[in-house]
Amino acid sequence: MKKPLILITNDDGYTAPGITLLAEIAQEFGDVVVIAPDGPQSGQSSALTVTVPLRVILKDSRPGYKLYKTNGKPADCIKVGLNKILGQKPDLILSGINHGSNASLNVIYSGTMGAALEGAIVGIPAIGFSITTHSWEADFTEGIPYIKKIIEEVVENSLPEGVCLNVNLPENDISGIKVCRQSRGIWHKEFIENIDPRGQEYFWLTGKYLNTEPESTDTDIWALDNGYVSIVPTRCDLTDYAYLEELNKNYENEG
Amino acid sequence: MKKPLILITNDDGYTAPGITLLAEIAQEFGDVVVIAPDGPQSGQSSALTVTVPLRVILKDSRPGYKLYKTNGKPADCIKVGLNKILGQKPDLILSGINHGSNASLNVIYSGTMGAALEGAIVGIPAIGFSITTHSWEADFTEGIPYIKKIIEEVVENSLPEGVCLNVNLPENDISGIKVCRQSRGIWHKEFIENIDPRGQEYFWLTGKYLNTEPESTDTDIWALDNGYVSIVPTRCDLTDYAYLEELNKNYENEG
Repeated sequence: MKKPLILITNDDGYTAPGITLLAEIAQEFGDVVVIAPDGPQSGQSSALTVTVPLRVILKDSRPGYKLYKTNGKPADCIKVGLNKILGQKPDLILSGINHGSNASLNVIYSGTMGAALEGAIVGIPAIGFSITTHSWEADFTEGIPYIKKIIEEVVENSLPEGVCLNVNLPENDISGIKVCRQSRGIWHKEFIENIDPRGQEYFWLTGKYLNTEPESTDTDIWALDNGYVSIVPTRCDLTDYAYLEELNKNYENEG
Repeated sequence: MKKPLILITNDDGYTAPGITLLAEIAQEFGDVVVIAPDGPQSGQSSALTVTVPLRVILKDSRPGYKLYKTNGKPADCIKVGLNKILGQKPDLILSGINHGSNASLNVIYSGTMGAALEGAIVGIPAIGFSITTHSWEADFTEGIPYIKKIIEEVVENSLPEGVCLNVNLPENDISGIKVCRQSRGIWHKEFIENIDPRGQEYFWLTGKYLNTEPESTDTDIWALDNGYVSIVPTRCDLTDYAYLEELNKNYENEG
């Protein structure tokens, strides 16, 4: 049987410990091609590089493993891999392991998940992995068996078209896995305001996350706060079907 | 009664004809503050500016109208407006009018819709408007009454928390309004491949859109192809609830 082909990217850049470990784990499941940004691309969502060309540079190659860096964002990496580099459709797309949580509404801003959504769009099973600490010294030891288990489950059962997985891992004291929904929440106090050395005002993005439904036990934030690895099935169809029906009534004489 | 406060941004930049017209229309509904990128930010999705500070520069001010430009992306514009510039919660967020369609899966990559989703996240009614032509000479004449009608409907009925509207307009021969779902589709032939003057290979994003469900009549692509203004209620909760149930079974002994 032919070995599966696995395409990997991230948003912390190709030298991050998280992607290095993910590529090692993935090699137990198949041949691996890493195409990752040449530097940090956090908060890039599904952004695409449109005004400059992409360069794709081979950094490492050995049997069953290739590593490319690009000047692109995470979604660009998947697109250029699928269209130009791989030469065949991969069996699985992995993104991460991101240094920092992509739970709750962070999924909206996450380059890690922007890359995973590319898989959902074209019908290739895709998983985005993140660990809740931003530190590059993050200890992934406890998480490794869970990452392997989740990859195994996807290899075995695949994923529906249009759906990828958003997986977040606590660093320590992991109690198990919870399949959950994206928690509602908001960011507040989102900017530092200051004066630069030339006397000009500036604003710099920061922010505190507020869980607006701390009592709910079916959310990814609850799972992580209680020591579980969270898995949120995440879709690329953003239609709100419930409100579609209601809104239709307001326009029913317009057709 | 106090006049509504309306915050407006776009992804084509503050000088684009589309945002200029949208700000004019909005002034019929309330006081308007435009905070928009200082240049094109197409394909920026919900990307945020994290590595450099934001500058917000007042370009125009008269009773009931203020215009600021920033070095940020569309989502940054809304965030800095809500957190730092407005000083009060706006009643409505508008984004656009984008020069180019944001129907189907373009919603994923759209900076216009990234800005509208900011409204959905914080519970402020938000509408992203786009016209199907990329031309800066787009003729909005036929679309204006539809834009006003949709703004009126949202002012009257508001929107559920977590939901914004993705509105796309044909340029001519408009037949009416259809409330629809996001069409499934893919982009293919996504890159031009070439050699630069220094002999180095590059890839440049382009692509052809393929409607993968041309027979469906309830999609935004069908509506636009048949002369209708399309409205897709668009949510910031990306959870796939149907697959959540199924996936739960595969992990039910893990908790």
